[in-house]
Amino acid sequence: MPISLYAISAGVFVRMLTNLEAILAKAEANAADRKFNPDNLVGMRLAPDMHTLAFQIQAATDRSKLFVARVIGQQAPAWEDNEKTFAEIKERLRKGLDYHKAIKAADLDGLEEKLIPLKIRGEEVQWAALKYLNENAMPNFYFHVTTAYDILRHSGVPVGKRDFTG
Amino acid sequence: MPISLYAISAGVFVRMLTNLEAILAKAEANAADRKFNPDNLVGMRLAPDMHTLAFQIQAATDRSKLFVARVIGQQAPAWEDNEKTFAEIKERLRKGLDYHKAIKAADLDGLEEKLIPLKIRGEEVQWAALKYLNENAMPNFYFHVTTAYDILRHSGVPVGKRDFTG
Repeated sequence: MPISLYAISAGVFVRMLTNLEAILAKAEANAADRKFNPDNLVGMRLAPDMHTLAFQIQAATDRSKLFVARVIGQQAPAWEDNEKTFAEIKERLRKGLDYHKAIKAADLDGLEEKLIPLKIRGEEVQWAALKYLNENAMPNFYFHVTTAYDILRHSGVPVGKRDFTG
Repeated sequence: MPISLYAISAGVFVRMLTNLEAILAKAEANAADRKFNPDNLVGMRLAPDMHTLAFQIQAATDRSKLFVARVIGQQAPAWEDNEKTFAEIKERLRKGLDYHKAIKAADLDGLEEKLIPLKIRGEEVQWAALKYLNENAMPNFYFHVTTAYDILRHSGVPVGKRDFTG
């Protein structure tokens, strides 16, 4: 059986965003335990010139959504990137997760060589879907999911790598 | 053309470890600019109960090496995890990179359904190579590469996501 493009893209997105959803739930419970407003987590960063937790959630859902939509040839749903509260970043994550859950293997499988028009660092290119996944969508997706986790761990949320890998 | 197991595993490991090598070079140059010993970076962590930069490099090279070796059915090279200096973590990364660079697509391609005996959270399982990659090796690999980057960014090293994605 050939390797399924779905299994190595949307399947991974569903899995990792589900894990991140459980991590956010632990972060919210920890804020209650420590008696601070979980909204305080939304703007946390690892460095003043790095992006916030809200941005990591926005980017993880965007990068993954755009890969799937572009490869299938769908219009990607537009999300406003205006999340400011913990409830709003949870809702943003849920929207990303719901988008990927609605994708069927048959929607993506076999499209690995389809040429996808992309703008990579200002240059218009046409990349095969598999190259787009391996060299752009997946590294970016994992970067933002991991950095969201790292921001929460740095903020004292008691999660471990088992929460990350699921 | 079916999706190549090599392209989605060792190919990704080579690419991301090469990017991480360039990030370490920038970290070393930055330490010189800021007039501190780069060895000081080796023990940096994002939280007192998280692992050090040295561990992230050890784990990234180990997780990726073990995937490839187990799927091919090779003995994985043993590395001691005793790196304490910046020169040593660079050398460890180089060993990991050299290991993956020596792998040929033909060594891995077609093995995606091979059952690999694994111990996952204390339980002996047999997972198809592709499941092992998607659910264990790749999330762990990206976790440690990203966290190495996040530790360095948090430590003030002037790198950006373009250094990460390459």
